[in-house]
Amino acid sequence: MSKSPKKNKIAISVGDINGIGIELALNTHETIKDLCTPIYCINKKLLKKAALKLKIKVPKDFKTHNTQGNFKIKKGRVSKKSGQFSYDSFIDAITLTKNEQTKALVTLPINKEAWSKAGIRYKGHTEVLREYFKQNAIMMLGCSKMFVALYTEHIALKEVPKKIKNKRLTQFLIDFYECTKPRGKVAVLGLNPHASDNGVLGNEEKEIIKAIKKANKTYDCFVGPCVPDTIFSIAHRDRYKYFVAMYHDQGLAPLKALHFDESINVSLNLPIIRTSVDHGTAFDIAYKKRSNQTLINISYINAVKEAIRLVKLG
Amino acid sequence: MSKSPKKNKIAISVGDINGIGIELALNTHETIKDLCTPIYCINKKLLKKAALKLKIKVPKDFKTHNTQGNFKIKKGRVSKKSGQFSYDSFIDAITLTKNEQTKALVTLPINKEAWSKAGIRYKGHTEVLREYFKQNAIMMLGCSKMFVALYTEHIALKEVPKKIKNKRLTQFLIDFYECTKPRGKVAVLGLNPHASDNGVLGNEEKEIIKAIKKANKTYDCFVGPCVPDTIFSIAHRDRYKYFVAMYHDQGLAPLKALHFDESINVSLNLPIIRTSVDHGTAFDIAYKKRSNQTLINISYINAVKEAIRLVKLG
Repeated sequence: MSKSPKKNKIAISVGDINGIGIELALNTHETIKDLCTPIYCINKKLLKKAALKLKIKVPKDFKTHNTQGNFKIKKGRVSKKSGQFSYDSFIDAITLTKNEQTKALVTLPINKEAWSKAGIRYKGHTEVLREYFKQNAIMMLGCSKMFVALYTEHIALKEVPKKIKNKRLTQFLIDFYECTKPRGKVAVLGLNPHASDNGVLGNEEKEIIKAIKKANKTYDCFVGPCVPDTIFSIAHRDRYKYFVAMYHDQGLAPLKALHFDESINVSLNLPIIRTSVDHGTAFDIAYKKRSNQTLINISYINAVKEAIRLVKLG
Repeated sequence: MSKSPKKNKIAISVGDINGIGIELALNTHETIKDLCTPIYCINKKLLKKAALKLKIKVPKDFKTHNTQGNFKIKKGRVSKKSGQFSYDSFIDAITLTKNEQTKALVTLPINKEAWSKAGIRYKGHTEVLREYFKQNAIMMLGCSKMFVALYTEHIALKEVPKKIKNKRLTQFLIDFYECTKPRGKVAVLGLNPHASDNGVLGNEEKEIIKAIKKANKTYDCFVGPCVPDTIFSIAHRDRYKYFVAMYHDQGLAPLKALHFDESINVSLNLPIIRTSVDHGTAFDIAYKKRSNQTLINISYINAVKEAIRLVKLG
């Protein structure tokens, strides 16, 4: 690859400073800067504190955006101040990207309890993005081998069957296509065991069939309803890269069984591009210099790569 | 291993004769007879027809039980006669095992539609066994690396949350322990995403917690409610061999993503031992001499091995 083309600027929110985020950012900077020009949302003072604690020298080309906040870093601790700072870093990264100063946003992990302590009422990044842009973000997780989009997410299992409605699902499939522009066929899962065995085990598949038919009139790529327990077996996986799951664990249990370390989280259907690592703050190993020895930075590097791929997709 | 000890007799029901079953039995006989003394439930006339069609010579030590039925074999076809025959072969194998002429029963795949055509009202093997023995069989699938027991099976997803009741689940866990005698801890899954995040996403985990506590008073080995989408990731899989899933796809989607070809089906909590292959009649490849080239016989050989292991477990 040529070194000459100008690299895309990517905003990085550093996540909870008491957690693994800043360590990942510092450890992987050499790799990341070859892929893009990262802009880290953290002020220089706090960055210096973290680097000192980690005994890592801050690289000279470690460009920052001046997100405010100055307090004592307490490794592995849930704290109000670090909760507030991680939120502010995220909001700054959104703003940079919305204002086109950066092309995309990659988030490092926040701690939900710390957000709650700081009086932030959102459960996580995706919820903030939904409200900020007043758009129905689609949550998709995966890696280069497979991606799973979730039709429903953080709701009780008993609420899921009621949500399987053809109109809403049709729109979801169309939005999904427009965000990902998949080359091959997309597997849409049934809801029930054996995808209901022709109505013997539930009837929600009727709605799914209608939605697939309607969506295929616009973008002819959807296949299903696929049998949920066999669609992720090796023979089927070879045929699909994208899967649409009806609920959280239907998609994420097989994905994490196969590709836990590599997986990332992508927010689709928003005016900006946002990707994220698929793990938490890892308080148990933060500031113990263990992140470099583990597989934990694969997810972060993959999140940056996917953000750049989506930028290029346009 | 010594060759001297007398081998256990195992009854083999040959499944739908228009499908892959008899081909698997003939192809793998050399391997199987080293593990046990198989008694194949098929009459010699029909066996000869199948062998001729397959161009395989029937081995001299291919011991049969004289299950009645004589008709034209139609490869890959759903037929009333082959449906009835597969049922009769299964019932004979149950009877042999119940009467202690054989120590265990291994089933080759039947076709549900053929059973229906023959007027057999059961949906599958497990249902017949439940009614035959009037006992609540536990369905468990897996391979040497991991086994998943299903607390609920072939019911619509919307019916699952109502079934999560502490008393019934406690009994299930105790029965499960007594059948499998697991050495390590057993992972019991939650029902909801994130195992409900302390009640934020559903409340069925309360019943699961109660059941685990009660069951642990008798057999202290149950851990949970485990987060359904991460419990099958590689780090957790190393810690558990046995998983109890609340519903069909929760357990089987990750299992089949990881170990589709090797997996088998085991019926627990019955007066007899029964194992089975974890695939169907494979009508598309039956009598095409392709079964030997594929991975399809791994599941059958594993089913025989597990039956023998359970016989030895006592």
